[in-house]
Amino acid sequence: MKKLINDPQNVVAESVEGFALAHADLVTMHTDPLFVSRAGGAVAGKVGLVSGGGSGHEPLHAGFVGAGMLDAAVPGAMFTSPTPDAIAPAIAAADAGAGVLAIVKNYTGDVLNFETAAELAEAEDITVRTVIVNDDVAVEDSLYTAGRRGVAGTVAVEKIAGAAATRGDDLDAVTAVAQKVIDNVRSMGVALTACTVPHAGKPSFDLPEDEIEIGIGIHGEPGRHRIPLAPADEITRMLLDPVVEDLGLASGENVLLFVNGMGGTPLSELFVVYRQARKLLEERGVAVTRSLVGNYVTSLEMQGASVTVLRLDDELTALWDAPVTTPALHW
Amino acid sequence: MKKLINDPQNVVAESVEGFALAHADLVTMHTDPLFVSRAGGAVAGKVGLVSGGGSGHEPLHAGFVGAGMLDAAVPGAMFTSPTPDAIAPAIAAADAGAGVLAIVKNYTGDVLNFETAAELAEAEDITVRTVIVNDDVAVEDSLYTAGRRGVAGTVAVEKIAGAAATRGDDLDAVTAVAQKVIDNVRSMGVALTACTVPHAGKPSFDLPEDEIEIGIGIHGEPGRHRIPLAPADEITRMLLDPVVEDLGLASGENVLLFVNGMGGTPLSELFVVYRQARKLLEERGVAVTRSLVGNYVTSLEMQGASVTVLRLDDELTALWDAPVTTPALHW
Repeated sequence: MKKLINDPQNVVAESVEGFALAHADLVTMHTDPLFVSRAGGAVAGKVGLVSGGGSGHEPLHAGFVGAGMLDAAVPGAMFTSPTPDAIAPAIAAADAGAGVLAIVKNYTGDVLNFETAAELAEAEDITVRTVIVNDDVAVEDSLYTAGRRGVAGTVAVEKIAGAAATRGDDLDAVTAVAQKVIDNVRSMGVALTACTVPHAGKPSFDLPEDEIEIGIGIHGEPGRHRIPLAPADEITRMLLDPVVEDLGLASGENVLLFVNGMGGTPLSELFVVYRQARKLLEERGVAVTRSLVGNYVTSLEMQGASVTVLRLDDELTALWDAPVTTPALHW
Repeated sequence: MKKLINDPQNVVAESVEGFALAHADLVTMHTDPLFVSRAGGAVAGKVGLVSGGGSGHEPLHAGFVGAGMLDAAVPGAMFTSPTPDAIAPAIAAADAGAGVLAIVKNYTGDVLNFETAAELAEAEDITVRTVIVNDDVAVEDSLYTAGRRGVAGTVAVEKIAGAAATRGDDLDAVTAVAQKVIDNVRSMGVALTACTVPHAGKPSFDLPEDEIEIGIGIHGEPGRHRIPLAPADEITRMLLDPVVEDLGLASGENVLLFVNGMGGTPLSELFVVYRQARKLLEERGVAVTRSLVGNYVTSLEMQGASVTVLRLDDELTALWDAPVTTPALHW
């Protein structure tokens, strides 16, 4: 295992410390328990937004804390759900009296721990709503999940719900728009290589030199099938077609096309995938009116990518376009 | 070789096409010869800024085309200098009558081809100045270089010269500020793994499973020495100390600390390196007043990182802080 780390047990704490030092204008780090909140604290009158999950997917989630997006994020251990005792104070830090929306990826541990944390927060008179992101069309149930997994579509949920909260929507309205994104976003990914969790010290799974895994999860959970390595255009079609069909996209619709890198794939390759995904959408009469390409929901150093499509209407487009100032998204 | 590509010969063209489609609001792609220019064209009265070099280092350079930074960028073939016949029209596209500054990394091919292109442009009555970036302290001469190599410090040169041009400095003044950055920026990198150029089909060099290369170049050129894998804090010290000493940094000075990923290293590890580099600078009494952490000057899927330090004064700080709107840098 070759990594730029010290003791594997300290990677998350040291990394978050470095992150908070580099972005001290935007975020504040809390230790014991570990979470990150917006510098300057919760914004009076605004609905608070909290997310979190296992580490190893950076910049998700802490990279999205800041104006126009999250108020707090809770990094768990590598590929391990954060515990309720860390989530509850993050919810409290995000609350400014208007209640808090928790955005949770659909993994059994995350869902349970956020549920317990919400109960702890409610006992402190904080109103909490929760939405569950489940955009991965690859498999129905999975290694750590009942129902579909939550993957890169989470970025769109956090961005758009953050914009709704920032424009002054109340908790019910922010929850509704987050759910609207969830209902209209789908993803699917591919792995070319496995990744290695530091404290495990060896790759999460074996993938032969001439095979790739279509429908991979962001923790290396099994996908749909393994196939021989194929040209990027063919792989992109295998990712995009199930996404488009699950969404029921029709000619004349507008979408956000998001090509996400798994961490170890060069940006140049992500743009090769984007080019083909866009062509395939246009062949179907679907217009790509917004785009995002880069490493946003990663799996450590895994090589691979995912394709996410979000159906856009005027409201979602305007919320996507609204200003955002976070370490990882900024416009 | 596992890559998300089609025909290796087409990677650059397909990738730039995808890039230009995804960022059509910021950049325009030109084919035959291939270069990228700012959407909307050169800005009347402003000094034009052009850079370029071999592909495989994305987002460098095309990712830095936009308001406040470059006016045009020329991507060569993978790890191969762009040719004068591609650079010359990029210079012409960047010219709005106030002349053009070419920012060139110190590789023999890049330097010669930009020199020839500048002569072609001068023959068309465009005034061209050139600065050579040579921030890599690892080795004096190298595989493709007489003198020190130009690496991640290039981002600071492009950002700060771009801000000077945008505030209305004339060609001599923009050239002087670019040279001031070059005189005050130093870098050094480490490779944990090699990378594979698509048309080569095999890794650029061999690096045993238990060794890393200190002082690596961004094309996998040999560095200072190979050592057994070590903790991140030790590796960071080996990168930072030569940088600080070459700069002659003294207690009480302010710097920009830039930790750059080589492409295949998780963001979490870059923050572990940043944390230690910052501590080491603070131990020397040097204040880190500006920071940048991420994958900006990459070597395809190489795992590794580089540490760049730029000595800051009030002028350079203000120019670094000036607004920038490009695909890869935005604030």
